[in-house]
Amino acid sequence: MAYQYLTNTPLEKAVEEYLSVLENLGMKYKTQQISVSEACGKITSKAVYAKICAPHYNACAMDGIALKASYTFGATETTPVTIQKELFAYVDTGDPLPKEFDSVVMIEDVSQGDDGSVVLHSCAVPWQHIRQIGEDICAGDMILPSFTQVTPAAMGAMLAGGVMSLSVVKPPVVGIIPTGDEIIPPSENPKEGEIIEFNSTIFSGILNTWGAKAKTYPIVLDKKELIINAVQKAVNECDVVILNAGSSAGTEDFSRLAVENVGKVLYHGIAIKPGKPAILGYADSVPILGVPGYPVSGIIVLEQILKPVIERLCKQNLDNNNVVNATVGRRMTSSLKYREFVRTRVGINEKGEYTAVPLSRGAGVVTSFVKADGIIDVPQDCEGYEAGQIVRVNLLRSEKELRNTMSIIGSHDPLIDEITDILKINYNNCFVASSHTGSMGGIMAVKRGEAHLGGVHLLDEQSGEYNVSYIKKYFPNGEVVLVRGVKRIQGIMVQKSNPQKIKGIEDIAQNNLSYVNRQKGSGTRILFDYLCSQKNIDKSKIYGYEREEFTHTGVAAQIAAKTAHAGLGIYSASKTYDLDFIPVCNEEYDFLISKQALDNENVQKFLQVLSGDDLKKRLEKLGGYNTDFAGEIKEEF
Amino acid sequence: MAYQYLTNTPLEKAVEEYLSVLENLGMKYKTQQISVSEACGKITSKAVYAKICAPHYNACAMDGIALKASYTFGATETTPVTIQKELFAYVDTGDPLPKEFDSVVMIEDVSQGDDGSVVLHSCAVPWQHIRQIGEDICAGDMILPSFTQVTPAAMGAMLAGGVMSLSVVKPPVVGIIPTGDEIIPPSENPKEGEIIEFNSTIFSGILNTWGAKAKTYPIVLDKKELIINAVQKAVNECDVVILNAGSSAGTEDFSRLAVENVGKVLYHGIAIKPGKPAILGYADSVPILGVPGYPVSGIIVLEQILKPVIERLCKQNLDNNNVVNATVGRRMTSSLKYREFVRTRVGINEKGEYTAVPLSRGAGVVTSFVKADGIIDVPQDCEGYEAGQIVRVNLLRSEKELRNTMSIIGSHDPLIDEITDILKINYNNCFVASSHTGSMGGIMAVKRGEAHLGGVHLLDEQSGEYNVSYIKKYFPNGEVVLVRGVKRIQGIMVQKSNPQKIKGIEDIAQNNLSYVNRQKGSGTRILFDYLCSQKNIDKSKIYGYEREEFTHTGVAAQIAAKTAHAGLGIYSASKTYDLDFIPVCNEEYDFLISKQALDNENVQKFLQVLSGDDLKKRLEKLGGYNTDFAGEIKEEF
Repeated sequence: MAYQYLTNTPLEKAVEEYLSVLENLGMKYKTQQISVSEACGKITSKAVYAKICAPHYNACAMDGIALKASYTFGATETTPVTIQKELFAYVDTGDPLPKEFDSVVMIEDVSQGDDGSVVLHSCAVPWQHIRQIGEDICAGDMILPSFTQVTPAAMGAMLAGGVMSLSVVKPPVVGIIPTGDEIIPPSENPKEGEIIEFNSTIFSGILNTWGAKAKTYPIVLDKKELIINAVQKAVNECDVVILNAGSSAGTEDFSRLAVENVGKVLYHGIAIKPGKPAILGYADSVPILGVPGYPVSGIIVLEQILKPVIERLCKQNLDNNNVVNATVGRRMTSSLKYREFVRTRVGINEKGEYTAVPLSRGAGVVTSFVKADGIIDVPQDCEGYEAGQIVRVNLLRSEKELRNTMSIIGSHDPLIDEITDILKINYNNCFVASSHTGSMGGIMAVKRGEAHLGGVHLLDEQSGEYNVSYIKKYFPNGEVVLVRGVKRIQGIMVQKSNPQKIKGIEDIAQNNLSYVNRQKGSGTRILFDYLCSQKNIDKSKIYGYEREEFTHTGVAAQIAAKTAHAGLGIYSASKTYDLDFIPVCNEEYDFLISKQALDNENVQKFLQVLSGDDLKKRLEKLGGYNTDFAGEIKEEF
Repeated sequence: MAYQYLTNTPLEKAVEEYLSVLENLGMKYKTQQISVSEACGKITSKAVYAKICAPHYNACAMDGIALKASYTFGATETTPVTIQKELFAYVDTGDPLPKEFDSVVMIEDVSQGDDGSVVLHSCAVPWQHIRQIGEDICAGDMILPSFTQVTPAAMGAMLAGGVMSLSVVKPPVVGIIPTGDEIIPPSENPKEGEIIEFNSTIFSGILNTWGAKAKTYPIVLDKKELIINAVQKAVNECDVVILNAGSSAGTEDFSRLAVENVGKVLYHGIAIKPGKPAILGYADSVPILGVPGYPVSGIIVLEQILKPVIERLCKQNLDNNNVVNATVGRRMTSSLKYREFVRTRVGINEKGEYTAVPLSRGAGVVTSFVKADGIIDVPQDCEGYEAGQIVRVNLLRSEKELRNTMSIIGSHDPLIDEITDILKINYNNCFVASSHTGSMGGIMAVKRGEAHLGGVHLLDEQSGEYNVSYIKKYFPNGEVVLVRGVKRIQGIMVQKSNPQKIKGIEDIAQNNLSYVNRQKGSGTRILFDYLCSQKNIDKSKIYGYEREEFTHTGVAAQIAAKTAHAGLGIYSASKTYDLDFIPVCNEEYDFLISKQALDNENVQKFLQVLSGDDLKKRLEKLGGYNTDFAGEIKEEF
């Protein structure tokens, strides 16, 4: 039953053919008649012509008198003209100009004569002070051509032109069919083996943004007949169908079979990564897209394959086209088999150039898309890039937001998120991008100019001092300052009630205990190594020493799930997961800042927050922090 | 009863004080709890933390067997290890890793042994092929900080983190109260003196775009008590109130009185144009904004004064900040009394620089906002600009759209709108900006490089030939081509059934008839002058000779409304308005194109459409056109 991927078709070719096949089969946008008041942002499907003129009558544009201009000819300061009362009419602004008249004189220029007559000291020009018929729009004029987005002003122009309703492109309905035996609707308490179905929510959001309408069907179990029935139903009810997951070639991947049963498969297997198991199918003129289950793969397939289809159905160019050149911060390799789409952080350096730091490539990591500022587009014929090379990045955020984004890279501590939140609450134009790469990663990121701030807590084994000796070593020319962050309690996190009766580091290497470590370069791992060497512990005896987590909470989560017995980490993580905690030391978590970045407005705001009461209160709640000197300069280099 | 404007307060000062007063009174965003699936595009009002880890269990990432990695230590190609059946379990991708195991071996690497045992030829690393707990998100991690826009990926991350609902900023409700005795709801058949109320629709559209919710109240008559009641009701029901029209100082302008009755007025009269009669009022912490009646004034007041208020209530930076420098194409004066906002066309020239051609400044002309590509911001202390000076323009369209916009300036003919429509139907990335400035205006616009194409029909009185001699005169160095457009019938448009029994030009100067002319520089006016001189008619005897319309339909509209007896124009306009028509001549309407613009992709598309069948059919319907040679090159210069 297991299929091979039939193709590794280049993306461009596959999409072009797909569109061509679909359009030949009659795939076309639909239209609907809607009232002008509902039309904001919609796309006209026909040209809109004015039905009446605006103004639709000659309207007096001043308070005064209306008359025939010819009566006033010859009037001057010295030769005033008297107009008898039957030859003029008093008018207010907006009044229709009486048919027999062709001019308005402002009330300020009118002297009252006897018997209701008036005296004028200057002559009027025909059609003066009159808003003439059609000054704004004439009946029959085209207000909007076809396939044009309706703006608020255009809504006004249509109503002014007597247009009450118009024909617009109807949002295409896109059916989303989630499949999978292990999949459950969103839940706060999933059981082991149950996977929360959130792709349909992501896809709906994306489709919404594109002006399409998502229709999510109930989850379908991995049974061939059920999937076929679901696809058939969706094809009957929708303009496009997304069949989610099961597009691979595994034993329970029925997507292809289902599409072939209901319609046809044009391609299965596209030369992109992530997203390669995509299925490009159709039934009559309804596209059926088999989308891989990993959320990141799914988003890429929607973006690269579905978007051009939706563009045809929405008659709108959805490409934001926000593609820029950026200098890539680290080496990245790429397969010649695929065109690759790599999520990346994007910054703007002092020279105004874009810089890109690629994020995790795990297709299952949806948070990487939340953090991504852009997508690096690596062509199929490219083997990758060396650090410093120029890459093409499709930006996901505005240049303005990127310019106002402060980059914090280094050791993980929840306090960074708390500071980010306080900054967002107090300043409306301050964005924070934080990455947990460990203390050494922070130092290197500041050195490379990728980070405004680096969070560090590195113990010098010789001096017992934190951070200073490392900074001296890596910044021999200075140009950085070290700002005091917090003191925080590091300790051994163990399972609730400490069933293994762990008392200290020395117990971890014994008794068949399972340890969970932090990644290389993290201050916590360096601390653990130091503690081991102090106690003469053979690290190779520690089961799980090679098992790496990137955050304190990551370590705590493993212990809470009882997949590990112990791990080193900060008190607050232990508290969050309700673990037992054996304090080991009080360490100094500081911030490394280049002197140049110190001038940055957002960095200044960061320092204010760091020394402020809001943060103190939050850290008290988290537990295990001392903020007495937070924000003070520890040392300049 | 008439008020003076109390102030001519600078905009920045007024807005700053207004916001400060409102915030001191407690104006603040509201929040609401919504489900994650509804959250796309919303702004978080609190940080969102993950409730569970994602994955929430250690999941097998491959089909194969789960076991303890330590059992495999030492296994190599030459020293395979046999694992007894009770020491491993078969697993599929996504299955929970059994608690007793810590590693997965791919099924491809497993050899079946006897008695259900398996044989491995390489050792496993602990935690290999396992999606570990929290790989994506750890419980307790911050998924989104406060005041952050929710993206589709973030929705997925929240659901993955067990978050079902979140607190977001609630869209503020903005009450819109239209007032005025002469105002009626949108209608296809307004009577004379009735003005269609479309401002509330424009305002609703704008508010929608900003993420606010508009609530439009029924039209209120110009009666003080009624307006006061309406404002009071809206203040009770809404977060912001817009009182539309009546903000001036006329006898029936009750806005200020009403605001003072319900609350307070901070400023009445702001130093901006258009928009100066704005009222900045409030009742408790509810802003009440008196907005002038002319739509363009209203839009500017919303943009400049209301937007910062909505930004506070939506907790979002609404400023697109798309401000560029542009070279202004013609002289523009500005008062030192006001900061002025001038709608403008914007182009991008060959050097990639922005160019601006200001549009009509009439505050009542809503179509000028439909046509505008940007707003020139003229500071209060600036008396204006000479042609060629640099101005600041806030762009209303994307750079991409502007780059793909073809500018057609010159003589009016409905065929340009029809070509625009055909282009929009056939090409999704082709935009047309057309202006009716008359044939001479078209020549000058091409000469200045403001237009890609100029529509011209200029009769040479000596030769009787069209256009060629004019082009020779204004382009002595050539570098342009003249492309044949259409032949069209010009004639005298007269009222239906010709009640004045007009037979020709000579009748117009007689019998007290009222004529309506075209603007100076238009080919039709030049033709009329030529016809008059041929017949030796004294133009000063023609009543209405000075009355100018800018389009053929404008002239026809006046005759149809019986405010004029005759006007020169093309047959199609006459037909649209069901007028009688006395043919005068068959003229040649051509397109002038610079040789440089000929390379432009959109200009090429234009020429294809010009010679195509679609246009022929449309012009047959309009009537009075001959398209036999349309699109052919008439002469190169």
